[in-house]
Amino acid sequence: MSLVNRDLVTVDDLSYGEMEAVFSLADEMSDSMAEQLNTCHGKVMACLFFEPSTRTRLSFEAAMHRLGGSVISVSDARASSVAKGESLADTARIVGSYADIIVIRHPWEGAARVVADYADVPVINAGDGGHQHPTQTLCDLYTLKKERKNIHGLKIALWGDLKYGRTIHSLIFALAKFGADMLFCPSPGLEVPDNIIRKLVAEYGGQVERVTTPERTTSGVPFPLDAVYMTPSSPHQLAMMPDVNIAVRLGKGVDALYVTRPQKERFVTTEEEQGLEGKYPVVDKQLLKGKRFERALVMHPLPRVDELAYDVDADPRSMYFKQAARGVPIRMALIALLLGARESPATVEEDVSAPTPEYPVYQRDYGARCPNPACVSTKESEAKYLKSEFRIVSREPLTLRCVYCEHGFQPEYIASSDWHEGRLDAKRYHRADSYWAKKIRPENLIVFGSVGDAEANGFKPGRHEGKKKARK
Amino acid sequence: MSLVNRDLVTVDDLSYGEMEAVFSLADEMSDSMAEQLNTCHGKVMACLFFEPSTRTRLSFEAAMHRLGGSVISVSDARASSVAKGESLADTARIVGSYADIIVIRHPWEGAARVVADYADVPVINAGDGGHQHPTQTLCDLYTLKKERKNIHGLKIALWGDLKYGRTIHSLIFALAKFGADMLFCPSPGLEVPDNIIRKLVAEYGGQVERVTTPERTTSGVPFPLDAVYMTPSSPHQLAMMPDVNIAVRLGKGVDALYVTRPQKERFVTTEEEQGLEGKYPVVDKQLLKGKRFERALVMHPLPRVDELAYDVDADPRSMYFKQAARGVPIRMALIALLLGARESPATVEEDVSAPTPEYPVYQRDYGARCPNPACVSTKESEAKYLKSEFRIVSREPLTLRCVYCEHGFQPEYIASSDWHEGRLDAKRYHRADSYWAKKIRPENLIVFGSVGDAEANGFKPGRHEGKKKARK
Amino acid sequence: MSLVNRDLVTVDDLSYGEMEAVFSLADEMSDSMAEQLNTCHGKVMACLFFEPSTRTRLSFEAAMHRLGGSVISVSDARASSVAKGESLADTARIVGSYADIIVIRHPWEGAARVVADYADVPVINAGDGGHQHPTQTLCDLYTLKKERKNIHGLKIALWGDLKYGRTIHSLIFALAKFGADMLFCPSPGLEVPDNIIRKLVAEYGGQVERVTTPERTTSGVPFPLDAVYMTPSSPHQLAMMPDVNIAVRLGKGVDALYVTRPQKERFVTTEEEQGLEGKYPVVDKQLLKGKRFERALVMHPLPRVDELAYDVDADPRSMYFKQAARGVPIRMALIALLLGARESPATVEEDVSAPTPEYPVYQRDYGARCPNPACVSTKESEAKYLKSEFRIVSREPLTLRCVYCEHGFQPEYIASSDWHEGRLDAKRYHRADSYWAKKIRPENLIVFGSVGDAEANGFKPGRHEGKKKARK
Repeated sequence: MSLVNRDLVTVDDLSYGEMEAVFSLADEMSDSMAEQLNTCHGKVMACLFFEPSTRTRLSFEAAMHRLGGSVISVSDARASSVAKGESLADTARIVGSYADIIVIRHPWEGAARVVADYADVPVINAGDGGHQHPTQTLCDLYTLKKERKNIHGLKIALWGDLKYGRTIHSLIFALAKFGADMLFCPSPGLEVPDNIIRKLVAEYGGQVERVTTPERTTSGVPFPLDAVYMTPSSPHQLAMMPDVNIAVRLGKGVDALYVTRPQKERFVTTEEEQGLEGKYPVVDKQLLKGKRFERALVMHPLPRVDELAYDVDADPRSMYFKQAARGVPIRMALIALLLGARESPATVEEDVSAPTPEYPVYQRDYGARCPNPACVSTKESEAKYLKSEFRIVSREPLTLRCVYCEHGFQPEYIASSDWHEGRLDAKRYHRADSYWAKKIRPENLIVFGSVGDAEANGFKPGRHEGKKKARK
Repeated sequence: MSLVNRDLVTVDDLSYGEMEAVFSLADEMSDSMAEQLNTCHGKVMACLFFEPSTRTRLSFEAAMHRLGGSVISVSDARASSVAKGESLADTARIVGSYADIIVIRHPWEGAARVVADYADVPVINAGDGGHQHPTQTLCDLYTLKKERKNIHGLKIALWGDLKYGRTIHSLIFALAKFGADMLFCPSPGLEVPDNIIRKLVAEYGGQVERVTTPERTTSGVPFPLDAVYMTPSSPHQLAMMPDVNIAVRLGKGVDALYVTRPQKERFVTTEEEQGLEGKYPVVDKQLLKGKRFERALVMHPLPRVDELAYDVDADPRSMYFKQAARGVPIRMALIALLLGARESPATVEEDVSAPTPEYPVYQRDYGARCPNPACVSTKESEAKYLKSEFRIVSREPLTLRCVYCEHGFQPEYIASSDWHEGRLDAKRYHRADSYWAKKIRPENLIVFGSVGDAEANGFKPGRHEGKKKARK
Repeated sequence: MSLVNRDLVTVDDLSYGEMEAVFSLADEMSDSMAEQLNTCHGKVMACLFFEPSTRTRLSFEAAMHRLGGSVISVSDARASSVAKGESLADTARIVGSYADIIVIRHPWEGAARVVADYADVPVINAGDGGHQHPTQTLCDLYTLKKERKNIHGLKIALWGDLKYGRTIHSLIFALAKFGADMLFCPSPGLEVPDNIIRKLVAEYGGQVERVTTPERTTSGVPFPLDAVYMTPSSPHQLAMMPDVNIAVRLGKGVDALYVTRPQKERFVTTEEEQGLEGKYPVVDKQLLKGKRFERALVMHPLPRVDELAYDVDADPRSMYFKQAARGVPIRMALIALLLGARESPATVEEDVSAPTPEYPVYQRDYGARCPNPACVSTKESEAKYLKSEFRIVSREPLTLRCVYCEHGFQPEYIASSDWHEGRLDAKRYHRADSYWAKKIRPENLIVFGSVGDAEANGFKPGRHEGKKKARK
């Protein structure tokens, strides 16, 4: 499928084959930098950076200049119309009429989706809160591919802040897509969020195993291993998933150690900050002497703070400056493909990743809103025009996923629009785990975040809903 | 007249014919975007934005890039030499030696005039405080022209904050120049300033009628109409101005509804902010169902806050995103003409607008200064080199207009340099509304803001100046 | 020597002949601006401005655009990764992989040296704290050369803040290199720092004479002259330096008056700010009427505040706007030479300046650190990877100079690594002015900032070190 005029908001927006196409073109462009100056001559890229950045913005801008294109840039939210209260939709529509492509970084999760929905030109997500950062993931995968030829079957340890690191969230899904195994090694309290684990298992196949304390010791892994993701040995064969012994799988050490800094700017509680005091795992020369890391590439999306010691810089396993440097050809390739300035190479392998499931859509003007306080749909300036919208990703337990921030949650109360059509006294709500919940057809489903929410919308407790229970 | 090397500080700087020339070139460029990449190749534009902006700056930058030129940009006052206390004159002279054209946005009224006075290259005002924003007006007029072919005779309702909206101030004069009628529909307390009304009547012809309460009802206009401007039916025919009945003139509804947001950042009193609470008129789907708006284009300079509902976006009468999009070809045409990269089209109609009156100049080292606190001439860094300068726009009542911010005011006391030449005891001041005031020749006039001001300069009360009066 | 891939961190990085090469190419480019658009086509320059600037950044960017190149820019530290705690070394390595050349401005002294050390591309210092600003100096010298043909033998008065003005520090060394005499006319309390005077005399030859109060009067110099630098009449002939009478040397007036603003943002004590109150010398029309200034060029690096009156602007001796304007061709020439887009003109005169002395290096993991609080090596984010490093520029008194900020200091205590090799009880420290200090070979030298520092490192007072003395 052609990439022309497409958006890149999450890693799900590119298939395995499309990512390979980007890598292939990046290879070609790396080898012929000086010849790319006409590729996007006359095209204008808008960089809208509403959050601090050096690396990512400069990397995108350098990429566009090396393609012969021009750049218009906002690098500070305070100096823009956002200070006057403008919505993302308006910004998207207007900037989309000035530029041929938009790159957006924003602190709100799902912001890039909104911009993509409203702009008439291709939109690239350069990081939206703690949600995703897909072009960083392309640099990461490209580095793995250049160094190891094949990503399939690699064992990658993800290290540090796995909760707020958007680069981690994008990377997890992409590694699963490429068939890599993952070891989750979070700083205590900064584990991979449940909704990511759920999506990983449900949509990418494979299996996540929690590592219990005794296993942590016997596995011989010298770092705080929390869980392991094992890719299905080949796609679409979940049923054949073998029961694996972690110690055996890890026996030969890891292929890469992907280190991240604590994303303190996204911490919600002061406990998270305090819990970190002196406990954040540090990768240094000493650690890398371990046999398990003998051939481990040391990766980091940068910037680093203290979690990656400078004494590692000279080590040939250090990949982080290469990851950064490769950001230019990767972004050149991506921009050129989305602008249609280059066609996808014909030699791209067939797509082998699992197709995304078609979940039922949930959208109503009332009832539950996304409970993620960082979600774009909850912000005052955006709620004026954005309707809450979810995918029903599971019926048991009933789980909804926000289409903007992809946060998943389990509503407590439900009702059916079918039951009370026209009859006011039939407007009754039930607990989401009750017998009744399973009877409701997706298109009739109404969910409520709380009893108060349900009653505010004129619903009464269902017949089988114990008063005590409902009132709690 | 050629536009090469000219400045665009206020809409008065362009004649009717010159604006038509800009529109004509914008049309041509819209139709051949890809062919414009050599138009300004090698030229450098400086964007000096000392106030928040996304739209305007990015639109100018995109325009320059699409002409093949380059851009150097300041997008944040705090990150510039202004933080070190540099004057606008110095900034203008220096940046004018780096770039081929300067675009300036500044919070001080008259700032663009100062930059134009000191820079050796063409200067475009991209908004100076609450004063003017002429390129927005070009986009507005261009949109009217594209949608209605002819602006002459249109009825435009101006809606919202007519006091602090610089886009409104520019637009009012330009619409008068093009022979459109205007309906002023301000939020209470945010009426069009008197000095703008005065200039409109005196220099553009036509007539402004206040709408009294009964008329508001009988006129059938469903919004808070404050005053109406009726253009002379044809230019230069003020004497033939017919006595018009508002209700009849408005009978067929309005051709456009120009909505603006409250410019809260310019509000001077907290009453202005409080007075707004829930009273600011909102344009939404419901309002637009009214018969008077049947064929009304809905326009807005953007960004909007709450005064223009999102439910209007899908309506074909909505013009605001088109206004924004047209900013690129309009600015391309303007830049190309000022840089001499393109010549004014030969087919431009003859200029039919009234010539600007030649008012006498008032400039002295002492005496009254501009009473507008937002005026550039009152700022510490600029007062070091800028002399107060005014035009004497009326003798009865004596009215001066600042050459920088165009604020008009009526000084309270006057004297004549003629009377006291060499004789100290003849230095006497009089009330500006006294018999003596009318006797003074413009070149001899001295004005004082107050008795204290007069006496500080060594003047004594005039013989006929009652002590009681003078001391008050 | 070719300038390709070289860095420009201090004026010492360019020889006299290399500076002449820059001037010569700037001349050529000034005369053929329109023909330079292919000179750096396809090259990308990164501007990293971590301190407020308009002039310098815009001048560099305009220069690159006029060479046909592209620019990626950071103009605000708060909007960059530095806000996330990134080190300069990491920034340098990464940006060096995006761009072909880096221009850096930073508040920390020595920051540009660090960036030059870690980036793989040429680095230009655009101002590092109070340290240096070499491209401003190139503009200053170029202006002198254009106006006076020859800089050798000129008498330049340096005026104002000679303590914190980085443009002054760069200029002093460059003027010495070109064989000009200098008159230091500081605002009281803002004299040229001692370490600059020391370096000037030791490395550039010539002689600095303090002007005593009686001489100030008899010398007939109408401004607060503090000291005079007399260049050796011809280089390398220090021995032949004649004993000169200041009054005679100054008899014919000065050739240029180089005025600077008080660098308040770098003041360390409130006394410095208060001491300035109304005492900062002002250059105005009146002063310039003095016979001594008859043919004096009035120069200023800008921005000015109050030290240079606007009434001088129209005077033909005013050079400051020309200095600024010449920044574009000077920077074009420099960039083109460093990028290898142009070769150094073959006609460059032979280098006549004194070769820089080869001072012994001092580098240890412990002991004295640079005592300059503005030095990059003392900052938390940089101390993680930067080792203190000094040059031993004098043995009597023992004086070390930081390789980063070039601050010179005299440590109080010393020891020798030779004496205690393997014997713990032999670890003894001595006063730096003691007999023992002179016996230590440079490679064995250990210096301590204080007794506490020495004892913290396990050293005991030396045998001949009186306890009273050592404990004080």
